[in-house]
Amino acid sequence: MTSQNPIFIPGPTNIPEALRKAVDMPTIDHRSPVFGRMLHPALEGVKQVLKTRDAQVFLFPSTGTGGWETAITNTLSPGDKVLAARNGMFSHRWIDMCQRHGLDVDFVETPWGEGIPADRFQDILTADKGHQIRVVLATHNETATGVVSDIAAVRRALDAAGHPALLFVDGVSSIGSMDFRMDDWGVDIAVTGSQKGFMLPPGLAILGFSAKAMAAVESARLPRTFFDIRDMATGYARNGYPYTPPVGLINGLNHACDRLLSEGLENVFARHRRIAGGVRAAVAAWGLELCAVRPDLYSDSVSAIRVPEGFDANRIVSHALDTYDMAFGTGLGEVAGKVFRIGHLGSLTDAMALSGIAVAEMTMADLGLNVRLGSGVAAAQEHYRQSTTALRKAA
Amino acid sequence: MTSQNPIFIPGPTNIPEALRKAVDMPTIDHRSPVFGRMLHPALEGVKQVLKTRDAQVFLFPSTGTGGWETAITNTLSPGDKVLAARNGMFSHRWIDMCQRHGLDVDFVETPWGEGIPADRFQDILTADKGHQIRVVLATHNETATGVVSDIAAVRRALDAAGHPALLFVDGVSSIGSMDFRMDDWGVDIAVTGSQKGFMLPPGLAILGFSAKAMAAVESARLPRTFFDIRDMATGYARNGYPYTPPVGLINGLNHACDRLLSEGLENVFARHRRIAGGVRAAVAAWGLELCAVRPDLYSDSVSAIRVPEGFDANRIVSHALDTYDMAFGTGLGEVAGKVFRIGHLGSLTDAMALSGIAVAEMTMADLGLNVRLGSGVAAAQEHYRQSTTALRKAA
Amino acid sequence: MTSQNPIFIPGPTNIPEALRKAVDMPTIDHRSPVFGRMLHPALEGVKQVLKTRDAQVFLFPSTGTGGWETAITNTLSPGDKVLAARNGMFSHRWIDMCQRHGLDVDFVETPWGEGIPADRFQDILTADKGHQIRVVLATHNETATGVVSDIAAVRRALDAAGHPALLFVDGVSSIGSMDFRMDDWGVDIAVTGSQKGFMLPPGLAILGFSAKAMAAVESARLPRTFFDIRDMATGYARNGYPYTPPVGLINGLNHACDRLLSEGLENVFARHRRIAGGVRAAVAAWGLELCAVRPDLYSDSVSAIRVPEGFDANRIVSHALDTYDMAFGTGLGEVAGKVFRIGHLGSLTDAMALSGIAVAEMTMADLGLNVRLGSGVAAAQEHYRQSTTALRKAA
Amino acid sequence: MTSQNPIFIPGPTNIPEALRKAVDMPTIDHRSPVFGRMLHPALEGVKQVLKTRDAQVFLFPSTGTGGWETAITNTLSPGDKVLAARNGMFSHRWIDMCQRHGLDVDFVETPWGEGIPADRFQDILTADKGHQIRVVLATHNETATGVVSDIAAVRRALDAAGHPALLFVDGVSSIGSMDFRMDDWGVDIAVTGSQKGFMLPPGLAILGFSAKAMAAVESARLPRTFFDIRDMATGYARNGYPYTPPVGLINGLNHACDRLLSEGLENVFARHRRIAGGVRAAVAAWGLELCAVRPDLYSDSVSAIRVPEGFDANRIVSHALDTYDMAFGTGLGEVAGKVFRIGHLGSLTDAMALSGIAVAEMTMADLGLNVRLGSGVAAAQEHYRQSTTALRKAA
Repeated sequence: MTSQNPIFIPGPTNIPEALRKAVDMPTIDHRSPVFGRMLHPALEGVKQVLKTRDAQVFLFPSTGTGGWETAITNTLSPGDKVLAARNGMFSHRWIDMCQRHGLDVDFVETPWGEGIPADRFQDILTADKGHQIRVVLATHNETATGVVSDIAAVRRALDAAGHPALLFVDGVSSIGSMDFRMDDWGVDIAVTGSQKGFMLPPGLAILGFSAKAMAAVESARLPRTFFDIRDMATGYARNGYPYTPPVGLINGLNHACDRLLSEGLENVFARHRRIAGGVRAAVAAWGLELCAVRPDLYSDSVSAIRVPEGFDANRIVSHALDTYDMAFGTGLGEVAGKVFRIGHLGSLTDAMALSGIAVAEMTMADLGLNVRLGSGVAAAQEHYRQSTTALRKAA
Repeated sequence: MTSQNPIFIPGPTNIPEALRKAVDMPTIDHRSPVFGRMLHPALEGVKQVLKTRDAQVFLFPSTGTGGWETAITNTLSPGDKVLAARNGMFSHRWIDMCQRHGLDVDFVETPWGEGIPADRFQDILTADKGHQIRVVLATHNETATGVVSDIAAVRRALDAAGHPALLFVDGVSSIGSMDFRMDDWGVDIAVTGSQKGFMLPPGLAILGFSAKAMAAVESARLPRTFFDIRDMATGYARNGYPYTPPVGLINGLNHACDRLLSEGLENVFARHRRIAGGVRAAVAAWGLELCAVRPDLYSDSVSAIRVPEGFDANRIVSHALDTYDMAFGTGLGEVAGKVFRIGHLGSLTDAMALSGIAVAEMTMADLGLNVRLGSGVAAAQEHYRQSTTALRKAA
Repeated sequence: MTSQNPIFIPGPTNIPEALRKAVDMPTIDHRSPVFGRMLHPALEGVKQVLKTRDAQVFLFPSTGTGGWETAITNTLSPGDKVLAARNGMFSHRWIDMCQRHGLDVDFVETPWGEGIPADRFQDILTADKGHQIRVVLATHNETATGVVSDIAAVRRALDAAGHPALLFVDGVSSIGSMDFRMDDWGVDIAVTGSQKGFMLPPGLAILGFSAKAMAAVESARLPRTFFDIRDMATGYARNGYPYTPPVGLINGLNHACDRLLSEGLENVFARHRRIAGGVRAAVAAWGLELCAVRPDLYSDSVSAIRVPEGFDANRIVSHALDTYDMAFGTGLGEVAGKVFRIGHLGSLTDAMALSGIAVAEMTMADLGLNVRLGSGVAAAQEHYRQSTTALRKAA
Repeated sequence: MTSQNPIFIPGPTNIPEALRKAVDMPTIDHRSPVFGRMLHPALEGVKQVLKTRDAQVFLFPSTGTGGWETAITNTLSPGDKVLAARNGMFSHRWIDMCQRHGLDVDFVETPWGEGIPADRFQDILTADKGHQIRVVLATHNETATGVVSDIAAVRRALDAAGHPALLFVDGVSSIGSMDFRMDDWGVDIAVTGSQKGFMLPPGLAILGFSAKAMAAVESARLPRTFFDIRDMATGYARNGYPYTPPVGLINGLNHACDRLLSEGLENVFARHRRIAGGVRAAVAAWGLELCAVRPDLYSDSVSAIRVPEGFDANRIVSHALDTYDMAFGTGLGEVAGKVFRIGHLGSLTDAMALSGIAVAEMTMADLGLNVRLGSGVAAAQEHYRQSTTALRKAA
């Protein structure tokens, strides 16, 4: 039994009707030309969403985690050194994966709620005279904390240090929702999935590889077969796949890119910022604070909201689900119990966002938190009304 | 392009996922036994929803309007006299249909916002010593005004007058949402459609005929073929139809009845009352009034809300659609421009209802009405929180 | 539980995937402009399929039978005289409907298997000096016998007689499958449904009214409300409907017209002729005969196949369903038990047609008829191979 | 644009309507209890399909290839020795994967068309006194050649040699279609996917791990994170996943298992054997031979059909697709151009199978092969008729 309510987890997102229909296909022969006519436009669409001219795009029947593994196993060898910051659950997990694959991870412990410390990176990279560091890992949007980091600043750190390391970016919860510029920022591998900004069901890892990343593939000695991009590239060149492709999701991705690109990426980002702004206005009206410590770190795809000291934030998520059949996200890792999360990425309307805010509000009131009914909703309404007017004036 | 928002028109309603899937079928042979295995449980389910033991149920590929025509053409002859009240657009239209079919309609003009005047009916019926009146028409729920009438009182009026007229009830926007008792109330023909309480797409007129109504069929001289229940009854007896049946809708109806009956009709009605209560709390918080003039007339499936004198209520409906992509109902007929309507029938959650209330609120504020943002939402939240608690205590 | 096999009843047809998705819509506000953006292109598309420039198109939530009733009740008055031929079940039923509506039907008994006797019509019309005959009814394709009649010849009969009667054509199982020319043939009302050539689920009566038919509406005294085209026309002018429209079917019709028109109507007809040709080749190979008595009467949408004297044709239909889960049509009325029917209208491929032929063959062999396995299939294969080659040469 | 024809590639299969609907879900919160209520029954269902009491089942968002990688990376370390036979494309690819992961593969070159040489395995295992061989890889059904191997014989070889090696079986194109007995045959890891016997879209690798295989996990030093079954097991214990689960496919798998188990596995296998028998009868009637060299090697899920010397089998596949819009499988690897393949696994009816046979027949005739139209169809019809009768007698 499924709910009629929208969901407010930070992905997978609410799937628009047209995309559900694009994914729900009868079986086709994936070795026939029909498949190529879905695959290549999807690859091309992803390139545009990544804002890259020359990167090669790969689509694996997998998830963002599989995307990370694709990135490291195709470019690195056991013992290779990578630099990362640990500022949330997802950066933590990527670091853990590197360690399990025998890489030497130099990671900067960073408070959860902070972004990637580009200045610290610059110091470390500058100090690495021998260029032992092969890759810098960066989590663009920390889904656990609702923090967006400045990838351009990480690129500047690399450049300032004159360091040749590759730059790998986890854009799982940013790409398609917030500005992402693969070429401008000199990103070598971008990783995302189908179930966030692309608004599809989970099941696809989506990657872009720069020419520099491609050049690293032949010498990489980490074993891989399923995730080997060489087999994938060979397949694509023949309009095929090295194994059975997830045809419905690829058809869906093709339609999702069309949808994002015809709306216009900048409009998509503005829409996310606008919806997120309403949620943030509600949080302020409730007298609560975000986990993200500064406005320039606020994510437009997910807000992690700190609850008062001593209150277990998980109760909010359980109560909302049990009483109002509405799904929010719990806190993960170091912020477990301290925050709850409202996901606001993908295709959301004002009305949907207001329903989430209204339920969060009722839930907190039910649980005895000092939140006035209607207060967050009113703040969000005010925000949406003003921004609607602004949009109309601009249009 | 369809909206992701729930709709708040007073039907067709939001269609639950499982019912959409039940309707969306590949073609079957409607002359094979498979069809009978959908049809008969659907007929049986409708009987239970109508609360009748012995009535015969008919399903026409049509609408509620077709249902009215089925009722009159199968039981009446040109010149026959019928009694009705005109207290809203839908009672008005039924009267108009009778006149166009050459019936002699004695109708009681009743203020829009009032219910059926059972006492006036009793006087008229008592005065009709010769029993010229063949049928009393009653609109159970006036969708135009959000007024539910007391059908039991109409029955009592008939009984008190010792009058043998048939009682036909338009339950299009009540059946499946509000209590309806075909047998207890002595209803001879009940009319509804697929797209309201049954939560399906439009396309079915659904009727119950009492034994007394069935007895009137042979002598009825109004011409009919498509709507002739005799052909339909003959078809059902052979697991078939007199023409091509709307198989998907009938399959959907079968599932819809299962859904209503497993929830329990009384629970379904309580749920509608609860959701409606939140809308009414919001209306009160906005300082507005319902078109229905007394609480016992308040409909649990639709609220018609009066706007301040001099303000055009249609602007609310247009602005909500244009600015927030949300559909409310306009006023019809005598209350056009004076009311807007919030439909709250079918499968609605608290969160969905709150999103409708929040958007109505923003819309009114946008248009300069003296409505405080968050005020209606807070009143509805309070209502839903209390009733949720009450439900939990009862469970 | 639905079958994975295609169906071979003469409608409803197999629904193409894209049309199922077009029909399966979430609820929209049918009073919003979105509805008009589906409705008007659908009306325009139907006009093109009917090959008419000026007719008005009407879409009723009903069936072909409702379409007939719309035709007669909007144009005729009790006692009016109509001329028809009775050469199959569907012409029979239309005559019956006229009689039940108090019309005076002059009908020509015609052998089932024959077409409309245009020469007899000419005699009768010529003899009707007083122009008492108001309407000539013609069933373009008799679904019961698989006979297509020559409507142009009926028009010539009217013209030769200098008779002003209106010409109403039941094109339920021809329009969208076989050539139909409303304007060229001087058809005044064309009637069809959603579930045949338009490949949609049942639920729509589709009609075209010529200017001459429209002119007859005001004086027509048969009572009608649900089927009154004046209310419908008023609704369309406001982008709406006089009652709740079947939105999903109208959206589907819009897509269906696009599909037919982009394929090109002449190509659609050629495709039907080609598929039908394979079925007819199989029938010949089995040593059986069609009910249609001459090749120029052969329908391209359905074949009624005579079984040997003394054999009950219904056994073929039952056995195919029970043993091979495949649906064929039984014989109706005068040819019940004497024919079985293979429907071949809508979207069918060679492979689908061959599967139907193969199962019909097995079934007849199972039941002891003298039919050699593979014989009909081979004949159809030969036909399809040659016509594929021919199409390729033409393209 | 999708075809209305069934497909005859050896997977993905034609998806039954009910399974398409089970997969096509709105987004749910995969961290809520709803997910556990799909996951655990799916895991339990797979156990029953694998015929295992104690194995642990794992479901990865991946493919069969990912399943192989899961098997080897969770149990082996670089340099470990494995034994395999190379008798088709899929056994070849698994061997290749092992080599790319640094394993030492001892493989027996086996003619394509032959099964796994269990006697040779026994010799090799017996000779391996030091038990260097850690794993025996066995491809149950070689999809490339249509050869089913005798896994029980491989188990007997291990037992006769008294060898402790693990037995890993690729059952991608057998499980759910042909008899597979994980416990009886002492299989340590069974690998399959969603898109074959389970009749779902691609996107799931499905594995069973015996207790002995589980015991090997801790010491395995091949790096893995995405495919690490320990993270997966931890997730399942909490009703969750280590990353975003493919919810729709898991829901679909749950329904697919229900479907297979309510039909009864032995009935499912008999059904596949029966359908395959018809295809094989057709092949014989065409005067052609299977790639599988002996009847006991004939696969019930796919037939690879040898074409006459000098004829390019790929032409059949291209022509069928281009001319008749029907998908067959090409030959792969060593039998490329020498065979074409008819997949007959999943949910197929007699009628569907006959349509594939009919089109294959037309295609070969079109290309000048000496194949009489109707000959293969007649042979298959005869087979289906007899087996239908047999089934009826048995029932």
